[in-house]
Amino acid sequence: MTLLRLVPLACAAFALQGCVAAAVPALAGSAIAGKRFLGDGDREPPANAPRLVPKAALDAAIAAGPPPEPTVPPGMQYLYGSGEAAALSLQSYMALANFLIARSSDREIGHDVPSVVLAPGSTLAAPRFVPCGDKPLALVLDVDETALLNLGYEQDEARRGTGYDPLRWDRWEKTGTRGVAPVPGALEAIAVARRADIAVVFNSNRSNANASQTAAAIAGAGLGTPVHLDTLWLKGDAGPGSGKDARRARIADKYCVIAMVGDQLGDFSDLFNAPGTGLAARRAAIQGRELEILWGQGWFMLPNPVYGTGLQGGYDDVFPADKRWADPAGGQ
Amino acid sequence: MTLLRLVPLACAAFALQGCVAAAVPALAGSAIAGKRFLGDGDREPPANAPRLVPKAALDAAIAAGPPPEPTVPPGMQYLYGSGEAAALSLQSYMALANFLIARSSDREIGHDVPSVVLAPGSTLAAPRFVPCGDKPLALVLDVDETALLNLGYEQDEARRGTGYDPLRWDRWEKTGTRGVAPVPGALEAIAVARRADIAVVFNSNRSNANASQTAAAIAGAGLGTPVHLDTLWLKGDAGPGSGKDARRARIADKYCVIAMVGDQLGDFSDLFNAPGTGLAARRAAIQGRELEILWGQGWFMLPNPVYGTGLQGGYDDVFPADKRWADPAGGQ
Repeated sequence: MTLLRLVPLACAAFALQGCVAAAVPALAGSAIAGKRFLGDGDREPPANAPRLVPKAALDAAIAAGPPPEPTVPPGMQYLYGSGEAAALSLQSYMALANFLIARSSDREIGHDVPSVVLAPGSTLAAPRFVPCGDKPLALVLDVDETALLNLGYEQDEARRGTGYDPLRWDRWEKTGTRGVAPVPGALEAIAVARRADIAVVFNSNRSNANASQTAAAIAGAGLGTPVHLDTLWLKGDAGPGSGKDARRARIADKYCVIAMVGDQLGDFSDLFNAPGTGLAARRAAIQGRELEILWGQGWFMLPNPVYGTGLQGGYDDVFPADKRWADPAGGQ
Repeated sequence: MTLLRLVPLACAAFALQGCVAAAVPALAGSAIAGKRFLGDGDREPPANAPRLVPKAALDAAIAAGPPPEPTVPPGMQYLYGSGEAAALSLQSYMALANFLIARSSDREIGHDVPSVVLAPGSTLAAPRFVPCGDKPLALVLDVDETALLNLGYEQDEARRGTGYDPLRWDRWEKTGTRGVAPVPGALEAIAVARRADIAVVFNSNRSNANASQTAAAIAGAGLGTPVHLDTLWLKGDAGPGSGKDARRARIADKYCVIAMVGDQLGDFSDLFNAPGTGLAARRAAIQGRELEILWGQGWFMLPNPVYGTGLQGGYDDVFPADKRWADPAGGQ
């Protein structure tokens, strides 16, 4: 298992960069996260998003002085504060680093290297992949809560307690470039990719109107300086809305995408978010015989219990009917 | 990379087992999860746990008829309902399966195989590991939210909305053996371990008073039938309270533990929960130069944003001071 030893990651400085923050108030999650994010792995105005607090109310709140320390939603405590979540992210990124070395070695000795981008006409039950030929190798990452933790925005949102606001999020994209930190492990895995001459490409649902600021945020976090429409693809660059397949296709036209990293299933294929896909079917799809082999071996998932397509479903969607328990002590 | 192909996991039937449930009401997480679980990766009565609802209140609620469909806390939607969390669990377990094959191959060809159990006197900054000699190989797993998802209990708890109740949890251990499902990937990884003659050992903070019922729950989920004090270790079997190091030491006396799996840092070492360890220090510790290499290569972390030591910390603990953002539009 020499492969397991191939990546001497240096984390001394990095160890200080883990504890960062992002959150949507917990109540937003169960109530609207589903509609809010279904089909969108990243930030997007939901039809029923909380509105901005009226200015009068804000002025009154300001006059009332600073509020008590906000309560931190559990999902945010976990993702941004815990060693457990940091270990989970680091685990995924170290697996990625080893995988990148393996694939670049395969290419170096002349073996065919497979792409992990689904080809047009694929289904989740019968996936096919685009050909690589001798295209240069690339790693494709989502940005928010995959490469970057949106510390400043979410800290501000948690403090306000008013929920997600797409207008404030847009101002964050434009001005928040220094309020981010890399996800634990991202810095080292991306360094491994660059040393192995693997292009690092970002595919995000941030707006392409803010391309330069998003590139600056990525660069400021030490993840390199991506070039818009080559190594940085954003909402509006290709295809409709927040679907990422059209952008993935453009990336795959130029690069042999050997690995993808994300915190949402839409970071791997839009098929997971096909209209009418039930929660149980969506959860079952990732475990299908053809796809399951990809997790940790080309598709790398990161945790995000704070927002996104993972936070949806009512009681009867989430709980199967065949596993009920009757407390012998009774009670309602 | 033939290793990546070594594990043909069959998931057709398994794909239906993913959508299960467990939850503590969201508000419980941020408010009390820290105190509640610090030093305890599993279920234990917290000093400030919600009390049972008074019988009169329950009778009144019963008289009032069935309540509206409960709201599902976001962490539970994520862990028990989402494809994202299922992919994350499957990713960890497939990495484990490959790792087990690699280690058992090393042993088979006569190479020394390292233990992943910390030796007495270790620190997180300077870990040392117990010697393996020629002891039989073993895989050590936590039970709750690592091997098993506690569907029945948590579904009942979510319906009640009254929070964690240690007395009800004890009744669950005694009578809930059929209301569980394996975590996505656990069934296949454990099958790989058994095929490779690697002992499968469970180290849980369930009570040793309920050993036979916990063994039945594990067996009923298809994970094999563990033997108490050999391949099943529970709270009360060795050492004080919910610390697991004493039990790990007993397991390591007999077995060469090549891998450990858990959803809490205490499933790997009690050192992470040393009294007075701050949140940032705890998060930084997992990324230390000596330990980080273990994640996914001996220590395998699984997601749990629903309860446990990952859910703790106030606003100033979780948010670093150097990443604030001032919205140019102002507002409180």
